[in-house]
Amino acid sequence: MNEFELIKRYFSRASGRADVVVGVGDDAAVLDVPPGLQLVAAVDTIIEGIHFPAGTSAVDIGYRALAVNLSDIAAMGAEPRWITLSLTTPRADASWLEGFAAGLYELAARHDVALVGGDTCKGPLVISVQVLGTIEYGRALLRAGARPGDAIYVSGVPGEAAAGLALLQSNAERDSASEHLVRRFLRPEPRLNLGRSLRGVASAAMDISDGLVTDLTKLCAASHCGARLDLERLPLSTPMHARFTEAQVRHFTLAGGDDYELLFTVPREHEPQLSAFDVPCTRVGEIVAGDGVGGFLHGEKIALPSAGFDHFREEDT
Amino acid sequence: MNEFELIKRYFSRASGRADVVVGVGDDAAVLDVPPGLQLVAAVDTIIEGIHFPAGTSAVDIGYRALAVNLSDIAAMGAEPRWITLSLTTPRADASWLEGFAAGLYELAARHDVALVGGDTCKGPLVISVQVLGTIEYGRALLRAGARPGDAIYVSGVPGEAAAGLALLQSNAERDSASEHLVRRFLRPEPRLNLGRSLRGVASAAMDISDGLVTDLTKLCAASHCGARLDLERLPLSTPMHARFTEAQVRHFTLAGGDDYELLFTVPREHEPQLSAFDVPCTRVGEIVAGDGVGGFLHGEKIALPSAGFDHFREEDT
Repeated sequence: MNEFELIKRYFSRASGRADVVVGVGDDAAVLDVPPGLQLVAAVDTIIEGIHFPAGTSAVDIGYRALAVNLSDIAAMGAEPRWITLSLTTPRADASWLEGFAAGLYELAARHDVALVGGDTCKGPLVISVQVLGTIEYGRALLRAGARPGDAIYVSGVPGEAAAGLALLQSNAERDSASEHLVRRFLRPEPRLNLGRSLRGVASAAMDISDGLVTDLTKLCAASHCGARLDLERLPLSTPMHARFTEAQVRHFTLAGGDDYELLFTVPREHEPQLSAFDVPCTRVGEIVAGDGVGGFLHGEKIALPSAGFDHFREEDT
Repeated sequence: MNEFELIKRYFSRASGRADVVVGVGDDAAVLDVPPGLQLVAAVDTIIEGIHFPAGTSAVDIGYRALAVNLSDIAAMGAEPRWITLSLTTPRADASWLEGFAAGLYELAARHDVALVGGDTCKGPLVISVQVLGTIEYGRALLRAGARPGDAIYVSGVPGEAAAGLALLQSNAERDSASEHLVRRFLRPEPRLNLGRSLRGVASAAMDISDGLVTDLTKLCAASHCGARLDLERLPLSTPMHARFTEAQVRHFTLAGGDDYELLFTVPREHEPQLSAFDVPCTRVGEIVAGDGVGGFLHGEKIALPSAGFDHFREEDT
């Protein structure tokens, strides 16, 4: 099977989207952006051994490569429309490619996203997905809009994905708690509906990919303000507490990445609107004047982990 | 230096494009597509040891990563506007990153393209660029429009890039001929002006990345027709002839990839318009009924190499 046949066989499913004028198979895709909408574009790459352990199933890799990208679109409050895929893999075998395509298309179909182009190559397992979406003019949720007094919210239960990854990387016995946590790592749910609901409600938003404290620090820097994080408010995870110590749970919650939950700020007058949302969101703190993120436990200031995952941090040697 | 600082230092130059509403630094870029235009999107990935030899300078890698993508936009007859970059590199040192950014921004500035987002990660050297452009409604040059009787043209001198790569990979002595050929590999010139000129002139177009015969075969398949290639018409390369045998030159010309010249077909009534173009284009054959590509030398049928570079072809073992 050559590259041409491979793309034709595994990556040429018709999407049914009327806005795809030319899809897979030409030098580039041709796409219709309806008038009055702005284009939203992001890219995220996942690499075996860095973003997921070697041995992760092809179907989980395919799902995850798209999920982390759709999460960026969710964080903007935008509608996903199209993706391109750059797939470098050492394995051109049919069962791996079938699994990968199945995971990718499963999530794509759920959110009506069309794969419109890409390239494939033999090499180290590196998957780069570029996602394109749209949003009504001027309505994108940015990181820069938080103001002192705004409440800070997170969706879902941050930390569970990092706990799941730790379990995947260990030889720990599997039980229902660990299955839940591992699934949270392998199958993050891009919060697209929540992102839509936050348009006109949140003052700033981003997704949590590098850990709650690291990402909140970035949001504060973009908004030129600080944050107070009330640790006793963080959502409790029964599965995490079943498998890890209190210190480990706190580390995963504050510094673990890979959750792809949304972190957002809400002016007080908009908070009542959150009760109508279908995703649980928890108020974890407040935006303050100044800069940086301060941690408090029942009003007592405590130290926070200084950074989440950083790809270019020097290794301990 | 962490990832955040790295992006800020090397990949956050202001572009001056008014259509970039939100660029590098948020979850996604927000971009304005003017009314009446269609979006054109492509992605291409280059990998050390596969698409360029280990030891290639950072500045050449940065240039090339963008050039191969702009070439796809040129092949559609479109205008490039924005790129996203996914950079995975084992080297986070300042001099490598400065070189890479210099090569990328040099070409981006020349074509007024803005880098609007991306991600960076430590890992094997893999660079994926996604390019976004626009074209007037319905004017994109596709592969599917060739008709029997159309003349087949190529721009520039196909084969020189493959010859340059062969020289790079050997320890051959460098002279002015080899410098020319190596430069043709390292610094392909995306034929954006030519692509613009071909709108309304060419019936089909694509860029030559996998070799003339392989790519012409793809164009024919998309257009449901065949092609006759007249080998004596192929443009002569004095530098190739200075360094290689007749058989090697023919192999590079017909089967070598990496030229990023344009391959296009022109209905007879439009051929006079080509004389006004500023890039030399050579008529190398004719579209015929049927399928596949037949090679002729002074009217005698001869065998053509069966395929260009294929990333998933089985290795000889």
